Amino acid sequence: MGNQDFKQLLGTDLPIIQAPMAGVQGSALAVAVSEAGGLGSLPCAMLSPEQLIAEINRIKAATAKPVNFNFFCHEMPAFDEKKQAAWQVRLKPYFDELDIDSDSLPAGASRTPFNPTTADLLEAYKPEIISFHFGLPNKELMARIKGWGTKIISTATTLKEALWLEAKGVDAIIAQGLEAGGHRGMFLSADITTQVGLAALVPQIVSQVKVPVIAAGGLADAKGVQAALLLGATAVQVGTAYLLCNEANTSQLHRAALKSTQAEHTALTTIFTGKPARGIVNRAIKELGYISKEAPAFPYASIEMGKLRAAAEKNNSAEFSSLWSGQNPSGCKEISASELTKQLAGF
Amino acid sequence: MGNQDFKQLLGTDLPIIQAPMAGVQGSALAVAVSEAGGLGSLPCAMLSPEQLIAEINRIKAATAKPVNFNFFCHEMPAFDEKKQAAWQVRLKPYFDELDIDSDSLPAGASRTPFNPTTADLLEAYKPEIISFHFGLPNKELMARIKGWGTKIISTATTLKEALWLEAKGVDAIIAQGLEAGGHRGMFLSADITTQVGLAALVPQIVSQVKVPVIAAGGLADAKGVQAALLLGATAVQVGTAYLLCNEANTSQLHRAALKSTQAEHTALTTIFTGKPARGIVNRAIKELGYISKEAPAFPYASIEMGKLRAAAEKNNSAEFSSLWSGQNPSGCKEISASELTKQLAGF
Repeated sequence: MGNQDFKQLLGTDLPIIQAPMAGVQGSALAVAVSEAGGLGSLPCAMLSPEQLIAEINRIKAATAKPVNFNFFCHEMPAFDEKKQAAWQVRLKPYFDELDIDSDSLPAGASRTPFNPTTADLLEAYKPEIISFHFGLPNKELMARIKGWGTKIISTATTLKEALWLEAKGVDAIIAQGLEAGGHRGMFLSADITTQVGLAALVPQIVSQVKVPVIAAGGLADAKGVQAALLLGATAVQVGTAYLLCNEANTSQLHRAALKSTQAEHTALTTIFTGKPARGIVNRAIKELGYISKEAPAFPYASIEMGKLRAAAEKNNSAEFSSLWSGQNPSGCKEISASELTKQLAGF
Repeated sequence: MGNQDFKQLLGTDLPIIQAPMAGVQGSALAVAVSEAGGLGSLPCAMLSPEQLIAEINRIKAATAKPVNFNFFCHEMPAFDEKKQAAWQVRLKPYFDELDIDSDSLPAGASRTPFNPTTADLLEAYKPEIISFHFGLPNKELMARIKGWGTKIISTATTLKEALWLEAKGVDAIIAQGLEAGGHRGMFLSADITTQVGLAALVPQIVSQVKVPVIAAGGLADAKGVQAALLLGATAVQVGTAYLLCNEANTSQLHRAALKSTQAEHTALTTIFTGKPARGIVNRAIKELGYISKEAPAFPYASIEMGKLRAAAEKNNSAEFSSLWSGQNPSGCKEISASELTKQLAGF
């Protein structure tokens, strides 16, 4: 595998990180990947404190190997009732079509940023690695986490973000190419024209920062992994390829979409959560306009879309689901995550 | 260099194609690259028949090695006077600001697609290789070109376009990643959300077509070249990195932008020509809105923008220039194209 710096960074046998994917996986996938020699990741952004503790306990019971815990660090905007009401008006025809009640919507959303309570909860576990999306927590929280001996990783989508993260003291930077599925980690700009493909992003970040760089986006097989390492990455993070694995919780509708030609067209959209994320293009994305100015700020856009999704999925339709996927679904395999991890590493 | 299939395809010593870049280079750059062992390219889309013949003669006099001749294959839409008038109204404030006359505009644009006259003209020269952008010429023209023993290459920006090109009988496919500078080669869809990063595009095309695949977009140094070959490409096409070479005609303003931090932000825009192309973001792109519904169809949007560009450049301003660049300008070097070609090949 050439450069062995990943061992010191990740404490793993293989330079493969399974990307945290909130909503489609839990501890089972993370454990399987870590046990296979990669770095499994637990997406924590949508977990309640109780759920998080339960997942940590499952992980600790199942593996002694390092696991990455991933949190969001978005700034939580004030709930804008006017904007939300306008969004509900925009979505009313769909609520009517799906015959669901738009009056019973909760006035909050389920994704809260990493905060002191999260740190209190994690302190007893002192995770080996924590990765962040949408920036970093504040200085005090960073210092607390570092005090546990935990390594901190975060995502850059531009050279500017990489330099910002390095200045804040991260142990490694995930260079997230435009190809990647799910939410863009972007945090210094909301302008999606700033987003860069992996082949252009990785070399530029590698040449300008001293910390290790982890390549993410569009990498789906052993050749992709090797190519990213050749570009100067210390390790790679792979998400989409794991979506069909036995240990993932990916829904049947999502799996079907990934296996179909529909997966050839993914796009960035803000309609599901308010932040740009890449998913398979479906009716909701097309009709609501990809990057929508009407969608409330993250995470509030998801309140209504979650309702629509649930109702549509009951009718066996994925037209209102966030079918997160990167631009290269060709590596998706219905095998164990252990087997896939080894294949990605070239075994 | 591993796989040597490129020798049979290109007739060169190195798997490096210099991307044709209309407006910033002519035969001098093409000759330098071909003489160095790569495949130089002459962008012919903006040349008059007389200019094309003169350039061919310069090439034939300077090198016996293969050179690629590149043509556009866009469908030429009817000139829409109403749309054009509205565009002129939109641009009026800039014409006023730059103190130029908007009444003296020509009613035509300079980019014509490959046609029987072009074929008549080329017949005597029987080029080794012709590459196309925006699809392919019709069946009859394809047959004529093939009759000369000429190899035909064209650009795919999606898997669908690659399969289409293979079905039409091309000898190789350029997989143009989203990172690439200049015009997107897209021709089956005008929807820019269909565009894919190189790391995702190349493996998917390689796995589904039998003809050789040439990787383009974001590749700027020997590691990038090697990574693309690892992904399954037979050769790579590099554009941006050549823009500062001695033999390129890149303007001083364009060179200055490429060497500045401004080059960190490129974007797709339709404002300069009517078709999406990637360039360094400047005032014109920002104020006219990147992908503009107001811009007339390709190539007519360029009529007015060309005037604005010329006037602004006289004032030493590049704010109305199409500063074509890919997302990875880090490989730009003020050296000879011969030296750069060898460096790209790892020598």
